[in-house]
Amino acid sequence: MTSRRGTLFVVSAPSGAGKTTLCREVRLRVSDLAYSVSFTTRAPRPGEVDGSDFHFVSVHEFRAHRDRGEFAEWAQVHGNYYATSAVAIDTALARGRDVLLDIDTQGATQLRARYPEAVLVFIVAPSLAELEQRLRERGSDGEGEIDRRLRRAREEISLWKQYDYLIVNRDVKEAVDQLTAIITAERARTVRLTLTLADLEVPN
Amino acid sequence: MTSRRGTLFVVSAPSGAGKTTLCREVRLRVSDLAYSVSFTTRAPRPGEVDGSDFHFVSVHEFRAHRDRGEFAEWAQVHGNYYATSAVAIDTALARGRDVLLDIDTQGATQLRARYPEAVLVFIVAPSLAELEQRLRERGSDGEGEIDRRLRRAREEISLWKQYDYLIVNRDVKEAVDQLTAIITAERARTVRLTLTLADLEVPN
Repeated sequence: MTSRRGTLFVVSAPSGAGKTTLCREVRLRVSDLAYSVSFTTRAPRPGEVDGSDFHFVSVHEFRAHRDRGEFAEWAQVHGNYYATSAVAIDTALARGRDVLLDIDTQGATQLRARYPEAVLVFIVAPSLAELEQRLRERGSDGEGEIDRRLRRAREEISLWKQYDYLIVNRDVKEAVDQLTAIITAERARTVRLTLTLADLEVPN
Repeated sequence: MTSRRGTLFVVSAPSGAGKTTLCREVRLRVSDLAYSVSFTTRAPRPGEVDGSDFHFVSVHEFRAHRDRGEFAEWAQVHGNYYATSAVAIDTALARGRDVLLDIDTQGATQLRARYPEAVLVFIVAPSLAELEQRLRERGSDGEGEIDRRLRRAREEISLWKQYDYLIVNRDVKEAVDQLTAIITAERARTVRLTLTLADLEVPN
């Protein structure tokens, strides 16, 4: 009875806040969320499938896509390029599908500029001490890298007011509940609904 | 780690849409919601307790409260006066408690004017045909009253764009989930959070 354009949900976080796990869990719960396979110039890791994990492209191809304005956001991280296809997002939204993207804070800013009606969600660890502990437990970074990530997290956390929602990730289950609730609530926002009185007169 | 002013949630609906049941169920699920016992000039029904079901007052007392600006909203329905205390709401909000009120559309408009930051939720039955059936099943109204309520519902439904959220009450469980999600999501809205970087540095 209601027709609507899809909503773009963008989830961002300083590294270590747990956004990847959170987004994966929410996709399992909210099964009709679309997502977009990112483009990258980095080499595939063992087991990664082109077109499914990433669209693996050369730097030349990447720049060609980018220069044609085909990316909704892009960034260079540790010498590799990453991007999200604008066409994939635009198509899903036009079909009324909601899209959930898991994007760094740089990318989130670009997405906000391109999709002003997007819903931006910021995830933070309960404290910097907790964040440090999680980065250490992950065991994938050396001391220098952990220090660098913590400094960057401190800068990124100050961006929280640019987001629509803030989730303090104390507990994964609770954080998944909150992110799911945000999606459910946004779907009921009158500004996102196109509805006429006539719709209400036709029984479903 | 976050301090905030409470949020006022106002749930409104044309009669028969199911808002009373919905609010009762949501209060059971979200146990920390405050509410406000309404004032009325109508006579208590058997079993109703003064101060718990309603504050039963005389027309004279009611007008005195109203004229001193002590009511956040008031209305005259079927010759009786009804009102919500502003003091009760203001106190709860100042203490950081969220308040859930179940109020007619007239009252919702008054609350919006007094509390611009309130969250207004509109509940509708899936169709006017369904609404008519529910009013008949309720069995409390004669034909003339049902017609009058349906005409009024048609007028009220046209107000939906003045609300922040619209819930189409097809199924009580689903509607309760949606209203609960709206409360959870609004609690995570950055505009409602007062948070400093320092807060994030103190482990909880």
